[in-house]
Amino acid sequence: MKKNDTEQIRAANRADVINALRVFGPLARVDIGQIIHLSPATITAITADLVNDGIVHEVKGPSPSAGRGRPRVLIDLNSHHASVLGIKLSINELRLMLGDLKGNIVAESVVVLKTQTHDQASLNAMLIEQAQRFMSQHPEHAKRLVSLGIAIQGFVDVHRGDVVWSPALNIKNVNLTEALQQAFGCPVELANDANCIAHAIHKLPNYSRCNNFVVIMIGYGVGGGLVVNGAPYSGHFGAAAEFGHTKYSHEGPQCACGRRGCIEAYVGDYALYRDASAVMDLPATDRRHPSERQMQKLTDMAQDGHAYASGLFNQAGRVLGYGIANILALMSPERVVVTGPGVRAYALMEAGIHEGIDEALVPELVGRSEIHAYPWSEDMTGKGIIALALKHFR
Amino acid sequence: MKKNDTEQIRAANRADVINALRVFGPLARVDIGQIIHLSPATITAITADLVNDGIVHEVKGPSPSAGRGRPRVLIDLNSHHASVLGIKLSINELRLMLGDLKGNIVAESVVVLKTQTHDQASLNAMLIEQAQRFMSQHPEHAKRLVSLGIAIQGFVDVHRGDVVWSPALNIKNVNLTEALQQAFGCPVELANDANCIAHAIHKLPNYSRCNNFVVIMIGYGVGGGLVVNGAPYSGHFGAAAEFGHTKYSHEGPQCACGRRGCIEAYVGDYALYRDASAVMDLPATDRRHPSERQMQKLTDMAQDGHAYASGLFNQAGRVLGYGIANILALMSPERVVVTGPGVRAYALMEAGIHEGIDEALVPELVGRSEIHAYPWSEDMTGKGIIALALKHFR
Repeated sequence: MKKNDTEQIRAANRADVINALRVFGPLARVDIGQIIHLSPATITAITADLVNDGIVHEVKGPSPSAGRGRPRVLIDLNSHHASVLGIKLSINELRLMLGDLKGNIVAESVVVLKTQTHDQASLNAMLIEQAQRFMSQHPEHAKRLVSLGIAIQGFVDVHRGDVVWSPALNIKNVNLTEALQQAFGCPVELANDANCIAHAIHKLPNYSRCNNFVVIMIGYGVGGGLVVNGAPYSGHFGAAAEFGHTKYSHEGPQCACGRRGCIEAYVGDYALYRDASAVMDLPATDRRHPSERQMQKLTDMAQDGHAYASGLFNQAGRVLGYGIANILALMSPERVVVTGPGVRAYALMEAGIHEGIDEALVPELVGRSEIHAYPWSEDMTGKGIIALALKHFR
Repeated sequence: MKKNDTEQIRAANRADVINALRVFGPLARVDIGQIIHLSPATITAITADLVNDGIVHEVKGPSPSAGRGRPRVLIDLNSHHASVLGIKLSINELRLMLGDLKGNIVAESVVVLKTQTHDQASLNAMLIEQAQRFMSQHPEHAKRLVSLGIAIQGFVDVHRGDVVWSPALNIKNVNLTEALQQAFGCPVELANDANCIAHAIHKLPNYSRCNNFVVIMIGYGVGGGLVVNGAPYSGHFGAAAEFGHTKYSHEGPQCACGRRGCIEAYVGDYALYRDASAVMDLPATDRRHPSERQMQKLTDMAQDGHAYASGLFNQAGRVLGYGIANILALMSPERVVVTGPGVRAYALMEAGIHEGIDEALVPELVGRSEIHAYPWSEDMTGKGIIALALKHFR
């Protein structure tokens, strides 16, 4: 941003107002000003513009608690003013989601199809076809479509829009944004699933003022997302926060990435199920992809006191703690938030996590950052990719 | 910064001009504008103010290469307009340095004294006494003193000005900035030595436009510095970039920090000399602090083909590469710069570094970031702490 360009400053202030309303709204004007540190005069001017443009409207707030006087006037976003399309590409599944201006998912469709048989051209053709079909079912949203976002598991270069590698695909270094951009005539964001989740968490009221934190997503694999100085951080090559592939041991078990001893090779669902299957009598499965039901069964056995199963989760916790210690030493974050389907077993891992941190981290640095689990009641990837796509609404 | 405050924008633009002159100066006005992306009119206004304030002056540039026409007018900082005092506190040594407005060290004094016998009060009294004595020897600088900076090895909380732990002290959680601030009536910056070096490197012309990079300092210990989105990053608790205490092995050798298996416990001078002494006939030393001469001797033996010595450096390189792989996965930086006295043996470690990275890093992420050594011809800690202190000059 050119700092002497008043037009751009106004645009940035306007974006800040919209973001505050998205996170905390509806809000009184005075509260918006306090949240984003702008003067009442500036807020009044910006909200007047936003009302004129149909982006926000006034709503009646609750009556004052004393019961006297008029209810306060609040400002709220017009959900229906703009839409974005979020796409989540997973192994043999495509999830299409419509997001409104508030960032809520208002329509959703899941398509089961082969994702691993494509070359770059057929993959992009498939994405365009599915996205166009979905949008044609929602013509009112198609008219106000602002941008698209695609979330995918694996290594992505967010700057270029390239998927470097993903378990969902059999091809590498594929661009996913250019063809969609051309087909829809609007910007397309690409992001790794864990980065989406970090973004979604940063939009929660309790986390939106936390400017330096780390999100660790555990599930089939182990991913990460960084929020640095108040913004998602993807690094120079757009592939930062690959926490799952930092190392616990240079001679450790095989990881799906091809190396050995990654955190994921101990903590990911496939790793836990693989290790459990070696010594326990478990239902046969595609060991590379144990189901949620199978993982829940293993978790239940550990909770019921099965010694090997509970020891396995404790060990996974220690490895996780060891990896978190590296992040604490490098990044000195305010919080580390563990989430993802794998938090089903967080209670079984928690003691191990702290043992791992205590064993690995310089004593003087222990106990500063807050480490906690965020419940996985919904897949936040969708909300995250919609929040990312919404940055193109101005 | 309040984005709607034009006064603060002007101040930020002015600071950008001063910084560009410090890094690249003397410069023609048109070149300043191109470096910091401001319009010619804005640059003309800012430089006029700076000339009026005595901060810059015009100098004649070289004649045009065609040999015709008048030489260009360049703008240069007035070195003598302001001074800062940099202090480096090491084990039993205090280095005092005067920096001018260009960030050059113009006077220096080294005091040998006990640093490990102090409590907080006597330590602060000693620092004030030494700083005042030094400044009284340089009365012309004392008159224009803007700020102080203190660099120290160990864990520091830059936000609070606290040394959490340092090998130079026998006390923990000591505030070093408040007493000095009161005694001198000007701001005092505290920084870890490796962070200072990252800051000094970021002020070099070839690195000043590199916005995401990692500096690894090897020497007695192993430290790190992060530049994130164009600025030094110290994290929420002000202690980021403790690269030396990220882990290679959970069952590794003893580290000076109290834990086991840290990168430093393989790569630091004390670790290399400890390991070498176990099998080689080396001059007796205080093994915790091998001298530069002893380390050079060990390096020379390895270079001359001593199998154990060269194997030791290769192994240290592998460990370093393994740690760098973790940073590459987490931060996706543009460059990793290895510097510090330990680069005396970089040629012996380089192959190992790349072997370690290749073994540890997800194949798809290998080869993106540039990894190189920066020669250690001078201790850049001083230049770095002076650059940090100079941020208070506006």
